[in-house]
Amino acid sequence: MLDQISSPTLLLNEQICRNNLKKMADKAKRNGMKLVPHFKTAQSQQIGEWAKEYGIREITVSSIKMAEYFCGQGWDNIHIAFPFNPRETKKINDLAKDQSLSVQLINVAVTEKLAMELENPLGFFIEIDAGYGRTGVAVTDFELIEGIMRMAIKTDKLKFKGFYIHAGHSYYEKDIEKLYDETRAALNMLKNKYRSEYPELVTRTGDTPGCSVIEDFGDIDEMGPGNFVFYDLMQVNLGSCKREDIAVALAVPVVDIHLGRKEILVHGGGVHLAKDVLTEPDGSKNFGEVVFLNENGWEIPSERSFLKSISQEHGLIKASDELLAKVKVGDLLGILPIHSCMTADCMGAYLSLNGQIVDHVEGH
Amino acid sequence: MLDQISSPTLLLNEQICRNNLKKMADKAKRNGMKLVPHFKTAQSQQIGEWAKEYGIREITVSSIKMAEYFCGQGWDNIHIAFPFNPRETKKINDLAKDQSLSVQLINVAVTEKLAMELENPLGFFIEIDAGYGRTGVAVTDFELIEGIMRMAIKTDKLKFKGFYIHAGHSYYEKDIEKLYDETRAALNMLKNKYRSEYPELVTRTGDTPGCSVIEDFGDIDEMGPGNFVFYDLMQVNLGSCKREDIAVALAVPVVDIHLGRKEILVHGGGVHLAKDVLTEPDGSKNFGEVVFLNENGWEIPSERSFLKSISQEHGLIKASDELLAKVKVGDLLGILPIHSCMTADCMGAYLSLNGQIVDHVEGH
Repeated sequence: MLDQISSPTLLLNEQICRNNLKKMADKAKRNGMKLVPHFKTAQSQQIGEWAKEYGIREITVSSIKMAEYFCGQGWDNIHIAFPFNPRETKKINDLAKDQSLSVQLINVAVTEKLAMELENPLGFFIEIDAGYGRTGVAVTDFELIEGIMRMAIKTDKLKFKGFYIHAGHSYYEKDIEKLYDETRAALNMLKNKYRSEYPELVTRTGDTPGCSVIEDFGDIDEMGPGNFVFYDLMQVNLGSCKREDIAVALAVPVVDIHLGRKEILVHGGGVHLAKDVLTEPDGSKNFGEVVFLNENGWEIPSERSFLKSISQEHGLIKASDELLAKVKVGDLLGILPIHSCMTADCMGAYLSLNGQIVDHVEGH
Repeated sequence: MLDQISSPTLLLNEQICRNNLKKMADKAKRNGMKLVPHFKTAQSQQIGEWAKEYGIREITVSSIKMAEYFCGQGWDNIHIAFPFNPRETKKINDLAKDQSLSVQLINVAVTEKLAMELENPLGFFIEIDAGYGRTGVAVTDFELIEGIMRMAIKTDKLKFKGFYIHAGHSYYEKDIEKLYDETRAALNMLKNKYRSEYPELVTRTGDTPGCSVIEDFGDIDEMGPGNFVFYDLMQVNLGSCKREDIAVALAVPVVDIHLGRKEILVHGGGVHLAKDVLTEPDGSKNFGEVVFLNENGWEIPSERSFLKSISQEHGLIKASDELLAKVKVGDLLGILPIHSCMTADCMGAYLSLNGQIVDHVEGH
């Protein structure tokens, strides 16, 4: 399989990916929750088929374009976890003809446009901002919540499904348990407040660090993590997983070795990995870590080596003595990504360990 | 033209792009230099055709895949400005059948592989590291330079063209004049040292900040800047250009407005813009700046507004009062990119101001 690779190629270890899917599906089941994984990470119909084997019937995506890619694949529902963009009303009308879809609403203006122009049934969640500050209705802004609800009932096409929180500050906050106390409390309060009016409403949370680490989800009904299908070094850093759980590695050709500086130059840069970065304890930057590739996948070296800098196509590895002793020009190395969602999006396809291309949404 | 846009779309202002091409072509001519623009930025056959109108006959690219995209388009030569990756020897043999190509060599191992396996003529530059430390032979490492030369003459297929310096530290160094003193001196020294043996050797330099700012290139023969065709905010910051010279802007739909926080949420994130970032004087991050779109292109507001944070698909604008007074949900805003090469690579296509799709290399 490695012989067929001449340029940067994203390797996918199916077994690790399936383990990650199974583990999260088991956890959801254990907690009586529905798992609706976020496919902004994998963006793959093939990986969708694997997910179905673990009882997954619905998925989440982050754009209409991505929803379109998964339409007609037998999903019970596709949830577009993004504040609905009113310029795409025509597209949602087209897609919703043949596929059960839901969106997120956070203001009255967009709800009104949908209420007036929707031609087919469409579910919606109200997205709640539980303090992350990126998007969503403030958890105590009942006026806005009820404004959206009142506007939605002007049409029989919009169906309120419940409340969604993306606790995205779990990526910054070290105390995920404390954060989940707030998430649980917020969703519980909203459910109690509105369930007499909407007896079928559900609550959903969606971040990988939380879904990986937390054991007690209280009465939250659904989870929608995305990154867990592959994981990455950012998640290792957050404590969501181990390096061994990372399911993708970028194979990069070695083009030069500088023994004096202990540096290795590879073909693999920002257009392949994206530019997400971690900071090492000594302040140096880490754009991805080296693994040794073999025909069965990859092996994590005992001494760490990492990409200390990248430009558009170049990557410069700060190399351990172990790596320098092994490597020669023309070899392939593997790079575990910092942020696998972005790396997969840059690469636009995967190569499985048995040499098969695995699909990914193309373009944006 | 704006009516047809419903999701993030990269707008290209042909007139600004042509002005940038013309200005650099004029500057090269004024200095008696050959301009060999680096198409890792535009990655477009159409923009290649525009370049030809300004007398450009050769281009630079950063990978074999990109070279392949431009083969058969009538270029006198395509230079692959990347240390040659020996795993791609078969590909270079295939491409070099019908297209004049050149590569960069920085070590003996790869030169030896080419000397043994090349089937068609191939030019090469020796890339010199003038202190940037990313890649290249140290300027005084004559042993390595001559090692490469000696290995290359073992075949009649490899033709030494000269020395190439990418003075990439012009992106970090404020004193570009001083830097160019070193670049000029290094290339001049190498030319004098080897031109009795290689009378046709040329010297080439390649960074946009240097090529934009410097007026005296000494006896450097060729220039290969890339970013100048579009420019971007990083280049504005470096003093290479003005905001008005930026030829691309990402059109993004407004999905929510938070008057209290003076924030605007748009559909436009890391998968569209890439994650290159500038730091504002107050320490906040800037992932791109807002312009007002109109049917003739865009207008730079008198008060700055910028993307203070982005995630995979979300962008959060810190908005001026001027912007807040004008904007409503469902509008389109333009975002000038921090690093246009990366944004164009993420988007994979352009929309011209008259509504035509302009091509870009797909995938990696």
